[in-house]
Amino acid sequence: MPNDKAPVTGEVQFRVRYAETDQMKVVYHANYLIWCEMGRTDLIRRLGTSYADIERQGIALAVIDASLRYHAAAKYEDMIRVRTTLVDAKSRSVTFEYTIENAETGARLVSARTTLASINGEGKLVAMPSELRRSLENAVA
Amino acid sequence: MPNDKAPVTGEVQFRVRYAETDQMKVVYHANYLIWCEMGRTDLIRRLGTSYADIERQGIALAVIDASLRYHAAAKYEDMIRVRTTLVDAKSRSVTFEYTIENAETGARLVSARTTLASINGEGKLVAMPSELRRSLENAVA
Amino acid sequence: MPNDKAPVTGEVQFRVRYAETDQMKVVYHANYLIWCEMGRTDLIRRLGTSYADIERQGIALAVIDASLRYHAAAKYEDMIRVRTTLVDAKSRSVTFEYTIENAETGARLVSARTTLASINGEGKLVAMPSELRRSLENAVA
Amino acid sequence: MPNDKAPVTGEVQFRVRYAETDQMKVVYHANYLIWCEMGRTDLIRRLGTSYADIERQGIALAVIDASLRYHAAAKYEDMIRVRTTLVDAKSRSVTFEYTIENAETGARLVSARTTLASINGEGKLVAMPSELRRSLENAVA
Repeated sequence: MPNDKAPVTGEVQFRVRYAETDQMKVVYHANYLIWCEMGRTDLIRRLGTSYADIERQGIALAVIDASLRYHAAAKYEDMIRVRTTLVDAKSRSVTFEYTIENAETGARLVSARTTLASINGEGKLVAMPSELRRSLENAVA
Repeated sequence: MPNDKAPVTGEVQFRVRYAETDQMKVVYHANYLIWCEMGRTDLIRRLGTSYADIERQGIALAVIDASLRYHAAAKYEDMIRVRTTLVDAKSRSVTFEYTIENAETGARLVSARTTLASINGEGKLVAMPSELRRSLENAVA
Repeated sequence: MPNDKAPVTGEVQFRVRYAETDQMKVVYHANYLIWCEMGRTDLIRRLGTSYADIERQGIALAVIDASLRYHAAAKYEDMIRVRTTLVDAKSRSVTFEYTIENAETGARLVSARTTLASINGEGKLVAMPSELRRSLENAVA
Repeated sequence: MPNDKAPVTGEVQFRVRYAETDQMKVVYHANYLIWCEMGRTDLIRRLGTSYADIERQGIALAVIDASLRYHAAAKYEDMIRVRTTLVDAKSRSVTFEYTIENAETGARLVSARTTLASINGEGKLVAMPSELRRSLENAVA
C-alpha cells in the first residue's frame, strides 16, 4: 500500500544582524526562538498555506512549551540555516523540532523544540480547522 | 488671568538589560526608540488615561516621524532615566521630546523627538477623541 | 550546628513595553527569556556581586540550556514580577528557575529554567572564580 | 574626463518576522533602524570589505544621528526591500540614506538617514583607516 505521507522540512537561510549580538560578541540566546519561528513559518508556507492566512481564519498558534540546547555560538554576519520538521500534530496542538546551523561550516549551533496550541480570538483552546489539521498531520516526519 | 495649563513631564527609570547591548558593548541604537515609548506611555498615564485605554477606544497613535541624536553610550546595568515632554498637540497628531540620561551620573545620552498620528483601525488618519485631545493640549510644555 | 546557607530569591518588577507585544496582542514568547535574565541579574546583585563585575574578571556565563512553559499571556502595560531561585551550582555551571507572574493578579504566566556555563574570553569552559562559586553554592535554594 | 566614481547601492530583501510586529498588527517602528543597518552592512560588503572586518581593525562605526519618516506600515510576511546609498563621507563620519519599500507592491514604507562616527575601542572619535575612507568616498552617490 502506498504511503501518502509527505514529510516536509522547512529551511531558511539568513545572515546574523548586528542587532542580534550582545556584549558577549555572540548572538543573544533569546533570538534563536525568533529564528525557530522563521523556520516553522517557512515549513507552513511549504504546506501550501501561510501562517498569516491561518490568523485571518481567527486561529492563532501560541507557543506553550519551548526548549533549547545551545551547542555553539553564532556571530555577526554568519550565514545561518534553520531546518524545521514537524514531529507531532494533534487536533489542538502541534510540535516542531529545529536544527540551527552555521550554513558555511555546517556546525550545529542550537537544537530546539516548541509545542504550539491552537487558540481562538479569546485565547481559548480550540480544534484547528480540519483542512489545516490534515495538512499538518500529513507533513509529520 | 490664571494659566490653567499644567505642563506634565513623564519620567521613568530602569536598568539596562543585557539583551539591549550589542557587540560594541553598548546599548544598540534602535533600543532608545523603545525607551522613548516607555517615556511617553508614562506621560500619558500621568494625564489620567493610559495608552492601552486609548487603543481600546479604537484609536492608535502611530509614529510618523522620529529623530535621535546620540551623545554618549549607555552600558549594561546602567540606571537610565527618560524625561518626556509634550511639545505640540493637534487634532490628528502629537509631538513628544525626550531626554535620556544616565540616572546616576546625570550624563545626557540621547535627545529625541517623535511625532505620532492618530489613526483608526483601518490605518486612516482621524481626529483624536475630544477628551484625549484636550488633555494633551493642556499638557503641552 | 547552624546552617549557614542563605537561599536567595531574585525579584524584579516592571511594566510590559509596547515593543514586547506582537500582533497576537500578547507578549512575544521569546521576550520571557529576556525577563529571566533580568531575574538572575537581580539575584546575582543580591549576592553582593554584579554580572557586569563577573564579566570584567574575564568570565562569562553563557546559557547552554533553556526550557519554558507558557501558562497564560502577559499583555501591554501589565505589571510583571519575576522570581528567580538558584537550584544548582557546580564549578562550571549553574542552574536557575524562574516564576513569571502578573504582579497585580498573581496569575502565573511562565515557569522556566536555564543552565549557564562558565566560559572564558575564547569561549572555553572554565571553573568559576572560587569566590563566585562559593557565593552561588551558598545561595542554592 | 572620466569620472572614476562608482556610486554603490546596497540592496537587501527579506520577509517580515512575526517578532517584528506589535499589537497594532504592523511592524514596530524601532525595527526599521535594524533594517537600515542591514542595508548599510550590505552596501559595505559590496565595497569589498565587511563591517565585521572594520571592527577587527579596532574601529567601530557608531550611529550619532538618525531620522526616519514613516509613510506606510509593513506587515507580517511582507517581502521588504531596503535600498541604501552613501550620501557623505568624511574622515571621521559617514552618512547613509535608506528607502524601505514593500518589494512586492513597490510602496514606499520608510525613508531614513543615519550618520555614523568612527570611534576606537575607548569610544574616542578617530579618523577612519585611509583605505576604508577612500573606498567610502568613491562610493558616495
